[in-house]
Amino acid sequence: MSTDVPSTPGEIVSTFVRRLESGLLTEALELLAPDCVYDNVPFGPIQGPEAVRATLAPFLAAFDTVEWRVAHQLESGSLASGTVLHERLDRFGATAPDGATEWLELAVAGVFEVRDHRISLWRDYFDRAPLLDWMASHG
Amino acid sequence: MSTDVPSTPGEIVSTFVRRLESGLLTEALELLAPDCVYDNVPFGPIQGPEAVRATLAPFLAAFDTVEWRVAHQLESGSLASGTVLHERLDRFGATAPDGATEWLELAVAGVFEVRDHRISLWRDYFDRAPLLDWMASHG
Repeated sequence: MSTDVPSTPGEIVSTFVRRLESGLLTEALELLAPDCVYDNVPFGPIQGPEAVRATLAPFLAAFDTVEWRVAHQLESGSLASGTVLHERLDRFGATAPDGATEWLELAVAGVFEVRDHRISLWRDYFDRAPLLDWMASHG
Repeated sequence: MSTDVPSTPGEIVSTFVRRLESGLLTEALELLAPDCVYDNVPFGPIQGPEAVRATLAPFLAAFDTVEWRVAHQLESGSLASGTVLHERLDRFGATAPDGATEWLELAVAGVFEVRDHRISLWRDYFDRAPLLDWMASHG
């Protein structure tokens, strides 16, 4: 088996994170189930890869660099039915008018359910305040 | 071994939650290491059981009912060195002037590190907005 093929629920989530960091949004969305729920807790859930794309694409387009630094990650179950929990620091780098890189940092805890080799639930817990502050000053 | 004695990191966390729900704050704090860090992410970390008491006691005193409904919980390691991640819905019930029960609900993801049979790190991810809204209307 190629090392590129996820063999556990945690590996699917790690691949998902790596693709988002690499700017491969379409490839990341291929890891989501057609009826995947993306519950961005402070703002509520949406459903389906295309709804996720419509939410993430304009946000990610504002940044030159995306880093999701996963700290603790635990998993249970299998690719048929599994759960992954992790905490991470999402860092989004944008070029300021003076050429310096400004970083938006969000401390996040993520919950993922995997069904039939796809992510069927992606739920992120975080504080909306740092995000809203950034949007207000960069709108 | 008594069923009351935690035998895994997850059981320590479950016992901690149960004691807080039961109003047994002192008994809950006995599960924290002397140098335990409590990182209430939107507001920053504090250290030590007495600092945790000073933060939690006045908050909990405002409520008649405390329910922490743990959904997914995963653990790794041992009582000597382990990690627990979970998501939960914290429900705090207070009696309104008209006698009805008002509920503050907070969606939380918790990260716990266990060292030497005690919780050495307790980190909660959540959105501060619902909490601040409640405090503003019940201050």
